[in-house]
Amino acid sequence: MKFATVSAGGQMIYGAIVDAGVIALSAEFPQWPSLREVIAAGGLPELEQAAQGRDVTHPEGAFTYEIPVPAPEKILCVGVNFPDRNAEYKDGSSQPKYMSLFPRFARSFTGHGQPLVRPPENHTLDYEGEVAIVIGKGGRRIKAEDAYDHIAALTLCNEGTIRDWVRHAKFNVTQGKNWDNSGSIGPWLVPFTDAAQLDDARIITRVNGEVRQNDVLSRMMFPIREEIAYISTFTTLVPGDIIITGTPTGAGARFDPPKYLVPGDIVEIEVAGIGTLRNTIEDEA
Amino acid sequence: MKFATVSAGGQMIYGAIVDAGVIALSAEFPQWPSLREVIAAGGLPELEQAAQGRDVTHPEGAFTYEIPVPAPEKILCVGVNFPDRNAEYKDGSSQPKYMSLFPRFARSFTGHGQPLVRPPENHTLDYEGEVAIVIGKGGRRIKAEDAYDHIAALTLCNEGTIRDWVRHAKFNVTQGKNWDNSGSIGPWLVPFTDAAQLDDARIITRVNGEVRQNDVLSRMMFPIREEIAYISTFTTLVPGDIIITGTPTGAGARFDPPKYLVPGDIVEIEVAGIGTLRNTIEDEA
Repeated sequence: MKFATVSAGGQMIYGAIVDAGVIALSAEFPQWPSLREVIAAGGLPELEQAAQGRDVTHPEGAFTYEIPVPAPEKILCVGVNFPDRNAEYKDGSSQPKYMSLFPRFARSFTGHGQPLVRPPENHTLDYEGEVAIVIGKGGRRIKAEDAYDHIAALTLCNEGTIRDWVRHAKFNVTQGKNWDNSGSIGPWLVPFTDAAQLDDARIITRVNGEVRQNDVLSRMMFPIREEIAYISTFTTLVPGDIIITGTPTGAGARFDPPKYLVPGDIVEIEVAGIGTLRNTIEDEA
Repeated sequence: MKFATVSAGGQMIYGAIVDAGVIALSAEFPQWPSLREVIAAGGLPELEQAAQGRDVTHPEGAFTYEIPVPAPEKILCVGVNFPDRNAEYKDGSSQPKYMSLFPRFARSFTGHGQPLVRPPENHTLDYEGEVAIVIGKGGRRIKAEDAYDHIAALTLCNEGTIRDWVRHAKFNVTQGKNWDNSGSIGPWLVPFTDAAQLDDARIITRVNGEVRQNDVLSRMMFPIREEIAYISTFTTLVPGDIIITGTPTGAGARFDPPKYLVPGDIVEIEVAGIGTLRNTIEDEA
């Protein structure tokens, strides 16, 4: 079963997602104002039970997707995490010893089906397809071998980037990675119950139907278990935290000439067993 | 008048700070659960009125300082923002065109009077004294000439850093800047009512009484007005957001040999008219 945060009738609610739409559940769980609190309480199975045999409350078209965990305490992204992608930087470096990490603010992401916004200041908007994990059980200095026990759910991310702004500054990619609504997370959360959901996953990114990225998570330089171990060395992970685990080669910036996103483009990030995150591109109003 | 968030009797409250201690005010303003909501409502003058002529509710010793705005949506730090500090990097670069920015998570900061924590993994804990501004009126694409109208209050920051981890990765300082309780913000908020509070400010950092940093904000390469303008180009600033504006030359890493902080050290960051942020150093328990 899949769970999402959606807006309907001016309200943000959460519920189970089925083919026909949403089975709203948030009104029945006032103790959990958002999926963040559901996850903190280990409440996804309870949500699943509550949704059994129920009819859709909001059919397709009657709601819009929000990012699945609204206002997580932390969103951390892992950079340059596939071997070819490290080579793309053409700086002669071999595999780095430590992973590159950068935070993104929640407002830099929109939900499934919403447009990614290309700002007037710069048109080098680029896609990056990634798997995102949602922390269920918090902790500090989590061991790699225990790391999967700390994941509540999986989702997808288009880690949309304004490329020119990534290298504005001497250090740090902050300003290229945090434009309002420049990326997306979703469509929904899939409970994480089996290591194979990650270990065997293949991620595919399409732009207007053309495959641009296609790789398996098992080729990551820093596997997800190590990401959780390394990150939790310095910061306490808490329920609802999101780790965006790294993108394969094939972002638009790596083509010659670059293939940046333009209004009307449709970007899809797909992982079998999780879903397809689809967004259009629009110029900022 | 000064306002702080403090813990007392197991509760987090806010109030006015006077020489003898805290005048608790939060119970009288249930519509504002924290100073973040006070600031969003423009409520600091109302707090000031409510505190007039009142006795201290919590004397010194009966409370501990928290960071002044708990759980801000965003904390953004400006890196390498004084001319000598840019030269310290000895990479032959002239003044950069754009500022370097990196986010910190709130849990990487502790309050005034609390220990900064040196972790067992690495002992290169370093200080960076900085002025922090708190956004009062949010906005996007704020013009530099209007930027000061968006500041509600000022406070101080010891932007404590685990130096060795700053350069772990190819890009980004994230993991050196986000160790739990490795820095501090406080002691309190001073309402921002006069441009001279920033334009004429001098910041002094002392370790065990020895002056290590001593400079004026007017020498910043990227003045605070420009920081607000640039940051709000890509992200919407909201009330309670904190911008940590940059540190002068003289951090411990720049000495030969480096002078890192050790347990028992006392670090003080002082700006006349704002206050003195004081923290000890402790090894992690």
